[in-house]
Amino acid sequence: MPESLQQPVREALLDAFWRYERALMSNDLDALDVLFAPGDGTIRGDAAGILVGHDAISGFRKGRGGAPARDVLHVQVIDIADDAALVIAVTAPLTGGRGQQSQLWRRVAGSWVVAAAHVSLPAPAVNSSIWRTVGTPLVAGAPTGALLGETVAVKDLFEVEGFPVGAGIPAYLAESMPATGTSPAVASLLAAGASITGIARTDEFAYSIAGRSPHYGTPPNPAVNGAVPGGSSSGPVSAVATGQASIGLGTDTAGSIRVPASYQGLWGLRSTHGAVSMDRLVALAPSFDTVGWITRDAATLLAAAGSSLDAQRQRAVEPRFVIAQALAAHVEPGVGEAFGVAVAGLEATEVDLGDIDDLFRTFRTVQAAEAWRTHGAWIEAHPGALGEDVAARFAFASTITAEQESAGRAALATARARLESVLGDSVLLVPSASSIAPSVQADAALIERTRQDTLRLTCIAGLTGRPAVSAPLLGVPQPGALLPAPVGPRFADLAVIGLADGLTPTE
Amino acid sequence: MPESLQQPVREALLDAFWRYERALMSNDLDALDVLFAPGDGTIRGDAAGILVGHDAISGFRKGRGGAPARDVLHVQVIDIADDAALVIAVTAPLTGGRGQQSQLWRRVAGSWVVAAAHVSLPAPAVNSSIWRTVGTPLVAGAPTGALLGETVAVKDLFEVEGFPVGAGIPAYLAESMPATGTSPAVASLLAAGASITGIARTDEFAYSIAGRSPHYGTPPNPAVNGAVPGGSSSGPVSAVATGQASIGLGTDTAGSIRVPASYQGLWGLRSTHGAVSMDRLVALAPSFDTVGWITRDAATLLAAAGSSLDAQRQRAVEPRFVIAQALAAHVEPGVGEAFGVAVAGLEATEVDLGDIDDLFRTFRTVQAAEAWRTHGAWIEAHPGALGEDVAARFAFASTITAEQESAGRAALATARARLESVLGDSVLLVPSASSIAPSVQADAALIERTRQDTLRLTCIAGLTGRPAVSAPLLGVPQPGALLPAPVGPRFADLAVIGLADGLTPTE
Repeated sequence: MPESLQQPVREALLDAFWRYERALMSNDLDALDVLFAPGDGTIRGDAAGILVGHDAISGFRKGRGGAPARDVLHVQVIDIADDAALVIAVTAPLTGGRGQQSQLWRRVAGSWVVAAAHVSLPAPAVNSSIWRTVGTPLVAGAPTGALLGETVAVKDLFEVEGFPVGAGIPAYLAESMPATGTSPAVASLLAAGASITGIARTDEFAYSIAGRSPHYGTPPNPAVNGAVPGGSSSGPVSAVATGQASIGLGTDTAGSIRVPASYQGLWGLRSTHGAVSMDRLVALAPSFDTVGWITRDAATLLAAAGSSLDAQRQRAVEPRFVIAQALAAHVEPGVGEAFGVAVAGLEATEVDLGDIDDLFRTFRTVQAAEAWRTHGAWIEAHPGALGEDVAARFAFASTITAEQESAGRAALATARARLESVLGDSVLLVPSASSIAPSVQADAALIERTRQDTLRLTCIAGLTGRPAVSAPLLGVPQPGALLPAPVGPRFADLAVIGLADGLTPTE
Repeated sequence: MPESLQQPVREALLDAFWRYERALMSNDLDALDVLFAPGDGTIRGDAAGILVGHDAISGFRKGRGGAPARDVLHVQVIDIADDAALVIAVTAPLTGGRGQQSQLWRRVAGSWVVAAAHVSLPAPAVNSSIWRTVGTPLVAGAPTGALLGETVAVKDLFEVEGFPVGAGIPAYLAESMPATGTSPAVASLLAAGASITGIARTDEFAYSIAGRSPHYGTPPNPAVNGAVPGGSSSGPVSAVATGQASIGLGTDTAGSIRVPASYQGLWGLRSTHGAVSMDRLVALAPSFDTVGWITRDAATLLAAAGSSLDAQRQRAVEPRFVIAQALAAHVEPGVGEAFGVAVAGLEATEVDLGDIDDLFRTFRTVQAAEAWRTHGAWIEAHPGALGEDVAARFAFASTITAEQESAGRAALATARARLESVLGDSVLLVPSASSIAPSVQADAALIERTRQDTLRLTCIAGLTGRPAVSAPLLGVPQPGALLPAPVGPRFADLAVIGLADGLTPTE
């Protein structure tokens, strides 16, 4: 069956193979570009997913900064035709382990080029962009309970007895002593039978929604190869998306559960403000801080939330939906369209939330004042400890005057009263984020614009203390995930999960 | 360039692809065998390495017990010829994450079959066959020192402050409290700047050299896909071989450093008995227990050992080599030949070690008596806690009478004196193991025979308390690794590493 390549043709193939290997080792991007087939059909895949098209692959290489040094242990050529062969190589990275590479080579106009490549590299002991500490398990749960068999990624803000808290900042971790107790939010999950897999990354002091860390690398987003994971619960969310845990335990002040859940096509609940104890947990802005969970399906989210919320205080909710067109201005066209399709037929009533920019400014003022009160002294004592983005945010927070804060709190009380009267017992439907996950290579301006728009959507739950579910209901337009977040009445957490689950289109 | 498949041909290909997918999900081994091309040229690769030949792949599937359930998210067909296509699929395991699969399909006698496959699955949070607990790092080392940048996998016998000790046994771990201090052997590495990546698996109470765990799975052997890792320092050795750590910290009573180092083509040192403190460390047989290190190269082994051994007590050694033909009876032919080639030209002198079976029986009697004294009470209090192999070994150990032990100790003293007078200041060259690493599917009889032969080689260092280096000097005949272990005079640890390094063939 397999035709044998003629000797000169085979030699030319192997010559191209080794030229490619040398170019890879010297990070000769031009040579690599020439050796990959031009056009939109060329494919490169690795553990993170596939890239399609010569230019996407070229862009990936530019951002990578070189492939890990390696020896080629073994090369096997499978002849296919006189212009096609599969070349399989087993590699030995100098840092240990084994890699594997399968390349489909085609001979085009007399030159051999790679038409498709599949690359496997040895896994690290732990993906340090997702996790700080991992065990098998790190902490065992109760032997029975509703969460038996579930595995938890705990955001590095919660205390777990015997381990320090890092809050996403190496200097903070370095000064942190092992906790002498365990946060109630963690203990609830353990008591219900879940085990703790590990302590996962957070954006610095949870004061970001992008999920990019200047210290530990950016956690992967398996739903959108090459995109940011979203934050600040970036580690727990990526742990759940990659299958390394089944429940992410996080916090949500201004969207830190909902945004990464949306970016990665997962389920997430920001719980009613005050419904779950915030003890033994690094705060950001206590007026808005809440505990929340991220899962791959609604049933697990319901179980996780159900194990942690006081059932006596939970209430039911009618499927009476409202929407606010004023939020549409802050949503990208693709998100707006998908959202329109999703809510069509729900008989959602339009409500007037007031001036969204005003609402956001009120939220931001009080949040910033509280964030600085929480962390300002530590930050001033540790110059240089924070990355640029979050340092700039705290610098802004430090400028909020007592008068501004006081005015903000008055405006907050007014806004709350008005929003409560408008929303009442109904459920507000709103996209969880203004866009799909931006690229990790996005410039700071784009990330900031996305942030500004998304926070206008997420702040409604923050201002009202209402629970909000991020659910992957807008479909997953390849490859992004766009999600509406029902924002329900306070203490309707579980009911709103159920409502959202009821909205899920059946296939 | 790429020919387009004619529509019926393409439909037949996609039909075969989906039949394959269904067979994979239902673990229909017969259907899978039919859909993989017959013959010795068929290849299947994944993170563990490649399997070559239809039958090897079929055997792997039989042992696997089914592939993880998944959805196929995306299928892309690259046409190559009218009898060849590459089919790339992105998969979504039900347990999260993304997988990727590249298959070269050939049309043979009208039927489409897979000629080569490359499979990527999402990585777990941590490979629990290698590790118990992992951090980034778990414990940071000193900011300067000879081991700066090195990462350590600590065998789960050593105390690390704040963490329990598991000794490879879940029931033992469950009763273990967090250590209140750190073993001196661990502390030496930290003081020299190495950081602790994690706590890695050991065979139960270190009383095995196979590396198979009945509790946590068998750690991988990247040097020999599908082979056992060797034990009892199985976790640290696999961690180093896979590149998940650069230094393995282990123990060696009867070969627990040298055997896994040999099986995985690494460097390993069993240190001089008594040269490194055994404090805060689960013992097995104190008359023979030693600390040791595993690395990927001689320089790192020298640095790790040098940071832990008292330089004042270390001595030099002349390159005066001896060999013992009596050991050859316990070595497989391939190992014997490679060993003969390696020692040719070293002008090694033949020495008479005495009856090897007698020596081994002496070693085994004292080892067993001490092992039972160390762990017998715990084992009797925890019926069923141990796996079959190690339970049987302890059952034998429990039968050693006081008279037998006493006679054994007398024989030990005699053997030591005799071996010391025979070996003197020379360096004994001996293979580290009787064979390359056996298959994980090897039956108990083969594993036991390998063990009996290998222990006859390794017990010489045990009986004399001499240091022994396992060095990958016999080459790595694809895919196994065969290694001679220079056994040097006591306290010539570092000198013997240097000697072994000098024997390394230059390429």
